[in-house]
Amino acid sequence: MSNAAELDMSPSPELQIPVRDDDERLNPDFIAAVETAIAAEDKSGLSAIAADLHEADTGDLLEALSPDDRAAFIRLLGEDFDYTALTETDEAVRLQLLEDLPNDVIAEGLGDLDSDDAVYILEDLDEDDQAAILEELPYADRAQLKKALDYPEDSAGRRMQSEFIAVAPFWTVGQTIDYMREARDLPDDFYEIYVVDPSFKLLGSVHLDKILRTKRREKVTSIMAERLDAVQATEDQEEVARRFERYNLVSSAVVDENDRLVGVLTVDDIVDVIQEEAEEDLRALAGLGDEEISDNVMTIARSRLTWLVVNLGTAVLASVVIALFEETIEAMVALAVLMPIVASMGGNAGTQTMTVAVRGIATQELSARNLMRVLNREVLVSCLNGLALAVLIGVTAWLWFSSLGLGVVIGSAIVINMLFAGLSGLLIPIALDRLNIDPAIASSVFVTTVTDVVGFFAFLGIAALWFGLPF
Amino acid sequence: MSNAAELDMSPSPELQIPVRDDDERLNPDFIAAVETAIAAEDKSGLSAIAADLHEADTGDLLEALSPDDRAAFIRLLGEDFDYTALTETDEAVRLQLLEDLPNDVIAEGLGDLDSDDAVYILEDLDEDDQAAILEELPYADRAQLKKALDYPEDSAGRRMQSEFIAVAPFWTVGQTIDYMREARDLPDDFYEIYVVDPSFKLLGSVHLDKILRTKRREKVTSIMAERLDAVQATEDQEEVARRFERYNLVSSAVVDENDRLVGVLTVDDIVDVIQEEAEEDLRALAGLGDEEISDNVMTIARSRLTWLVVNLGTAVLASVVIALFEETIEAMVALAVLMPIVASMGGNAGTQTMTVAVRGIATQELSARNLMRVLNREVLVSCLNGLALAVLIGVTAWLWFSSLGLGVVIGSAIVINMLFAGLSGLLIPIALDRLNIDPAIASSVFVTTVTDVVGFFAFLGIAALWFGLPF
Repeated sequence: MSNAAELDMSPSPELQIPVRDDDERLNPDFIAAVETAIAAEDKSGLSAIAADLHEADTGDLLEALSPDDRAAFIRLLGEDFDYTALTETDEAVRLQLLEDLPNDVIAEGLGDLDSDDAVYILEDLDEDDQAAILEELPYADRAQLKKALDYPEDSAGRRMQSEFIAVAPFWTVGQTIDYMREARDLPDDFYEIYVVDPSFKLLGSVHLDKILRTKRREKVTSIMAERLDAVQATEDQEEVARRFERYNLVSSAVVDENDRLVGVLTVDDIVDVIQEEAEEDLRALAGLGDEEISDNVMTIARSRLTWLVVNLGTAVLASVVIALFEETIEAMVALAVLMPIVASMGGNAGTQTMTVAVRGIATQELSARNLMRVLNREVLVSCLNGLALAVLIGVTAWLWFSSLGLGVVIGSAIVINMLFAGLSGLLIPIALDRLNIDPAIASSVFVTTVTDVVGFFAFLGIAALWFGLPF
Repeated sequence: MSNAAELDMSPSPELQIPVRDDDERLNPDFIAAVETAIAAEDKSGLSAIAADLHEADTGDLLEALSPDDRAAFIRLLGEDFDYTALTETDEAVRLQLLEDLPNDVIAEGLGDLDSDDAVYILEDLDEDDQAAILEELPYADRAQLKKALDYPEDSAGRRMQSEFIAVAPFWTVGQTIDYMREARDLPDDFYEIYVVDPSFKLLGSVHLDKILRTKRREKVTSIMAERLDAVQATEDQEEVARRFERYNLVSSAVVDENDRLVGVLTVDDIVDVIQEEAEEDLRALAGLGDEEISDNVMTIARSRLTWLVVNLGTAVLASVVIALFEETIEAMVALAVLMPIVASMGGNAGTQTMTVAVRGIATQELSARNLMRVLNREVLVSCLNGLALAVLIGVTAWLWFSSLGLGVVIGSAIVINMLFAGLSGLLIPIALDRLNIDPAIASSVFVTTVTDVVGFFAFLGIAALWFGLPF
C-alpha cells in the first residue's frame, strides 16, 4: 500500500475519487462530483460516493457546498445521511440547514444520535424551534434531551452523553463481560464502565483494559478506581477541560448534585473545548467576537465595529495629549515626525507582556505565588530592551535631524514608555482578572491607552523642557 | 460525600491537606507542608504527603518550589518519585533538574517510564547529556529510546509510545483476552489492540469495547477496523493532531516507511499538541517566541527584542512618510494632533482581519475555494465600518477644530485606510502561506506597515491637496 493511499483516510469506495488532497483539504474533484450528482438528482450516485464518509468529512463537505445544495444533499441521501455531521459544521451552516429542513425530518435524524450530539445540534436553536423538534421525538429521547438542555449553557451536563454502562458492586468481571456481549443499546464508543449502588450513586470506575486483564471470577470492585474524579453536571466546560488536560483523562463520569451518575464526558468533546479556549483568547485580544468564516457581512461588521469604536476612544485620548503640545510641535515639527515611534514601540512591548500575562492567567501558570518574581522580571526586561531600543532610536534621530538633543529626548521617552508598557501589560490583566473581567477581552484597550498617552506625553513633554519650547 | 471533597481530586491521605484550592490552584498550605518536610529532611513525612500525588500535581508542585528544594524533593522521595512528573513541568524547570541530578539517578528513574515520556524528558537535553544518560540504561530500553530520538523533532515518532499489543490475524477474541490476562509488561493505558502479519505489517485495529462485546470464539479479523488511519512515524505532530481532532480519535497506530507497526499515539499527547498549536499562533501574532513563565530575564529580553527591532523598521518607515509632509504639518499643526487616529484605526481593523485569516489558514477553514467570497466580504465589512468610523471621527474633528474641511479630510482618509487594512489583513497572510512562511509570525509587521504608511500618507496627502498646503 502506497503512502498516498494511506493519507487518504476515507476513500469513496466506488468511484475512487480521493476525498482529501495531499494537504488534507477536501479534494475539489470530489466536491465537483458531489455537486454533479446533486444537480442530476442522482440519488444512488450520490450515495455511492458520499454515504460512507466519516461525519467530519461530511461536515466539511456541507460547508463547501452552496446553501441550496446543502439541503438537497441531505434530502437526496435520505436515510444514508448521518446527522452527526451537523456537529462538525460551523454554526452558521448548521442553523441554515435546521431552518431549511422540515422539523419531522430533523427529529428522525436526531433520534439515531448519541444524546450529546443531539443536544449540540439543538442548543443553538431558539426555544420555539427546539420545542417543535422535541415534540416529534419519542418520549424517552425527548425527556433525556430536555433534561440535558436544562443544564446551563457550556456546562458539563450539556456536553455529556447519557449513554453509559453501569454495573452493581457485587458483579464479577465475567458477569460484566457477558452483560456487554448481550446488551443491545450500548454507547457508540466507551473507555470505562461505572460501578453504582442501587440508587445510582457513583462508587467507582473501571477502565476497559483493566477488565480485559483481569480473571473472570474477580469482583469489579476489586479493580475499580475509587478515587472519584467525577465531574459535576453543572460545572463549566472550561474547568472540566482543564482537568481533562491536567490529568490526561480520556473519559469521566458526570454526577448530579446528589452524586448520582447521569452521564459520561469523553475526550473528543473536550478537545474541542480546549482548542476553543485557547482560540478565544487569541480572538479576544484581537478584538474579535465569535464570528465564523461563514457569517454574513452585517453580522461581522457589527461585531467588529464595537471594538473599533472602543479603540477610537483610546486614539482620541492620545490626540488630546498631543493637542496639549500643539505649540511645541509648531516650534519643532521634527517632534511630529518622530512621536509615533515612541507610542508604537511601547504598544508592541505592552502587547508582548500582556499576551504572556493573559495566557499565564488562563493556564494558571501566573499566580499570586510567582507574581512578584514575574513583575521583577518584566521590569528588568523592559529596562534592558528599553535601553537597547533607546540607543538604536536615539542614534537614528540624532543622525537624521543632526540633533544630539533630539536623540537624547527620544531615547529617554522610549525607556520611560517601555517601563510603563511592561508594568501595565502585566498589572492590567491581573487587576481585570481580580475584578472578574475577562482579561483577554478588556486588557488591550487599557494597555494601548497607557502606552499611547505615556508615549506622547513623555516624548513631547521632555522635548519641551529640554529645548525650552512653549507648551 | 460533600462537593468540596469531590473537587479535591488528590487528597494527601495522611495529613488531609487538600492539594488544590477551590480555584484548582495548588494549595499554599500544601506547598508549605512540603517545604517544611524538605527543610527538616523528613523523608517519611514527605512521602506521606507527596508520594501518592498524580504526576500532574507533582509537576505543578516542582514548579512552585525553589530550585534548591526541587532537587531535594526528588532526592528525599527516592524510589517514591515518579519521573513522569518531569513531563508535566515546564522546560526550564525540567532542564534545571536534569542538570542538578546525577545521571545514574535520572537513568534509573527513566527506566520505569513509558517510552514516550522518557523521550519527552530526554529530547531537550544536549547530545552529550543525552548520551551519558542513555549509557546508564539497559540495552533494550536504550535501543528503543535511541530509535525514537532519531525521528525528527515534533514528529509522530517522537511522541509515540513503543509499548502496544499486537496479535496475529488468526487469533480469536478469546485467545486475545487470555493473552492480555497473562502478559506482564502491557502498556499503562491502551484503547485498542492491533492485528499484524508475521513481518509486523499493520492489518487493522480493534477497539477494546469491540473485544468486550464479542463472543470468545470470533476471529479478531472479523471485528477489526481495516480502514487504515495509521500515522507515519515521520509525520509532523501538528498534522497528526489535526487528524485526531477532525476524526475524534483516541489513539492511532504509528507505522514506519515499510508500513510496519512501530508505536501508538494516544490522545493525551495530542491534546498538548493541539493546545500548543493554537497558542503558538497567539504568541507569534504578539511577537513572542516560545518563552516560558520560568525563563530568566536575559533569555526573555533577547527573544522579545528581535521582534521590537523588526517593528522599529515599520515605525521609522511611518516617520519617513510623515517627514514628507513636514511643511504641511508646520502650516496646520492640527494634522499632527489627528494623524495617529487614522493610523491606529487602520492598525486595529487590520489586526482583526489578519487574526481571522491566520486562524482560518491554520484550521484550513480558509481555502482557495472560499477565498473570493471571504475577500468580497472583507472589502464590504471594511467599507461599512470605514464609513461608520469616518462619520464618527469626521464629526469629532469638525467640532473640535471648527473645520468642516478637516472632518471631510480625516473621514476620507479613514475609509481609504480601512479598505487597505482589510485587504492587507487578508492577502498578506495568504501570500506568506503560499511562500511557505508562517503567516502567524510574519503577517503583523507587514500589515502594520501598510496601515501606518497608507494612514499617514492618505491623511496628510489629502489634507495638503484639500487645503492647498505646501508639501
